[in-house]
Amino acid sequence: MSDPVTLHDIYLARRRIAGQAARTPLILSQSLSARFDAEIYLKLETLQPSGAFKLRGALNKIASLSPEQLERGVTTASTGNHGRAVAWAAQRLGARAVICLSELVPANKVAAIETLGAEARVIGRSQDDAFIEARRLVSEEGMALIEPFDDSLIAAGQGTIGLELMEELPELDRVLIGLSGGGLLGGIGRAIKSINPRATVTGVSMLEGAAMIASLEAGKPVEVEEKASLADSLGGGIGLDNRCTFELVREVMDDHYQVSEPAIARAMLHFFEQEKMLVEGAAVVGLAAIDEHAIDIRGEKVALIVSGNGVDAGTLARARTLLDYPSR
Amino acid sequence: MSDPVTLHDIYLARRRIAGQAARTPLILSQSLSARFDAEIYLKLETLQPSGAFKLRGALNKIASLSPEQLERGVTTASTGNHGRAVAWAAQRLGARAVICLSELVPANKVAAIETLGAEARVIGRSQDDAFIEARRLVSEEGMALIEPFDDSLIAAGQGTIGLELMEELPELDRVLIGLSGGGLLGGIGRAIKSINPRATVTGVSMLEGAAMIASLEAGKPVEVEEKASLADSLGGGIGLDNRCTFELVREVMDDHYQVSEPAIARAMLHFFEQEKMLVEGAAVVGLAAIDEHAIDIRGEKVALIVSGNGVDAGTLARARTLLDYPSR
Repeated sequence: MSDPVTLHDIYLARRRIAGQAARTPLILSQSLSARFDAEIYLKLETLQPSGAFKLRGALNKIASLSPEQLERGVTTASTGNHGRAVAWAAQRLGARAVICLSELVPANKVAAIETLGAEARVIGRSQDDAFIEARRLVSEEGMALIEPFDDSLIAAGQGTIGLELMEELPELDRVLIGLSGGGLLGGIGRAIKSINPRATVTGVSMLEGAAMIASLEAGKPVEVEEKASLADSLGGGIGLDNRCTFELVREVMDDHYQVSEPAIARAMLHFFEQEKMLVEGAAVVGLAAIDEHAIDIRGEKVALIVSGNGVDAGTLARARTLLDYPSR
Repeated sequence: MSDPVTLHDIYLARRRIAGQAARTPLILSQSLSARFDAEIYLKLETLQPSGAFKLRGALNKIASLSPEQLERGVTTASTGNHGRAVAWAAQRLGARAVICLSELVPANKVAAIETLGAEARVIGRSQDDAFIEARRLVSEEGMALIEPFDDSLIAAGQGTIGLELMEELPELDRVLIGLSGGGLLGGIGRAIKSINPRATVTGVSMLEGAAMIASLEAGKPVEVEEKASLADSLGGGIGLDNRCTFELVREVMDDHYQVSEPAIARAMLHFFEQEKMLVEGAAVVGLAAIDEHAIDIRGEKVALIVSGNGVDAGTLARARTLLDYPSR
């Protein structure tokens, strides 16, 4: 019995997050459009105040909590885009937030969480230990756990991207979306398919460690071994007790592709050199898929969801090295 | 007798360019706001389809031409943001465009112009030769010269940025604007000062070769020697027969600063590392001025006009070298 997400839920989410999350720009990429003989648009979720789409879901979830719950506070265990989004959203909505992190997390990430007004609780030697602490805060202190994806309010929040796409580009033929836990793809897919069932919703994951794709193939949530990837934000499992996103993705996704590390690296360098944007690997897998799998998009209007700038010059250098690309 | 630009001209410009030029996003920079204890917003003109604000003025000018003039076509001599903007605008508005370039211009810049559907006329050994050809096309073939800045329609087009700023952030205390020929600063300044005379309009130029600042100090347009700069888009003279922007800037600018090359380099690296944007030197001079001159903006709401991504990894490397900054 899955927890559903409807188009109405997404409209409710939009009302809740308005004025806090940005309505992000959709821009035409001249260079990609010329290269693939199509109209290729970039939805720049990198321009969310927190730097990634995760803010939409976190705001929708936290804004749905009762005043009593806001007082007791919210928690999660995440070092990345989700953790920053929860901290940012909680600060805006006046809720106390505790972000649980392991001792292995670098000091700059701890500081980034604290800058956003949240408490960074550093505990244990692994991400699992951090999760245990977050669950303890829920059971013993009554805090609300803000799931990274497997929650209908989170997926509905991310789905507001789909509404913006359909409003600005109703002729959209295809959207390519990074596929990890399925909150982003599920939410956007629900919005798009509800409005125009003929638009194609394409998921893209990295070659190894793609838990949702392995689960869809197995017909039920399964675990996969994690591998290092330039698209590390797409790593992690979907939860063996997945309540929402497994069914949702199964319903709304038309096709999916997996992309190699060199293809991700090439796409990152395209964004850097042509679009002049420094974005993380997870943000560029749509382009990597079109390129590596020669997806036929000629004459189509295509949107790529570009989210996540959790990247630095070092990652870009790794991408160059992977391609044996001259460093300039 | 100067050619004036009024708030009404800017409203007319907005109507003319709507749907062609982008209404660009204004985003809060978390890191700059924290660093300077202010609210610092970035107006991302880098997201114009042509990559820079120049598109607004070019569209406004070309859309104001008669059908007969559109048929005879438009011309200019520019290798940079203005040339691309004229090519882009002419293509959209169905006008023939000839962009005059010297033989010294690299092939990739010629190709970039041609990709936008304009004719790249490569002639002579200098930018001056290219200008002579553009003027010949005007006098002998009846083409319209699209000035880079000294034209009230061009300045009014750039001024639409000021309207967007006041609509989204009417509490704005100060805007910092790169100052070169004065089309951008003059247009934005006219919009802002007409709506709220108490908002501060600050111009920023590089240390050497700042023609407008030298002219203001001399009380009339003067020539200065050009020097190489990371903010090369801000180079060039204002024209000894300046008809519009000299008076306009004199009227609307409250104060101005000049910034050193290391300060520009530091600001470029901030944008790269913190904002994850690869932008040219001219786009970051506002930040360079706040930093280098310790402008007191505590508690203020400040907007920086970020325009121009005519930069590559090589320029970034030069910026690092200038600062003796470790390459990663």
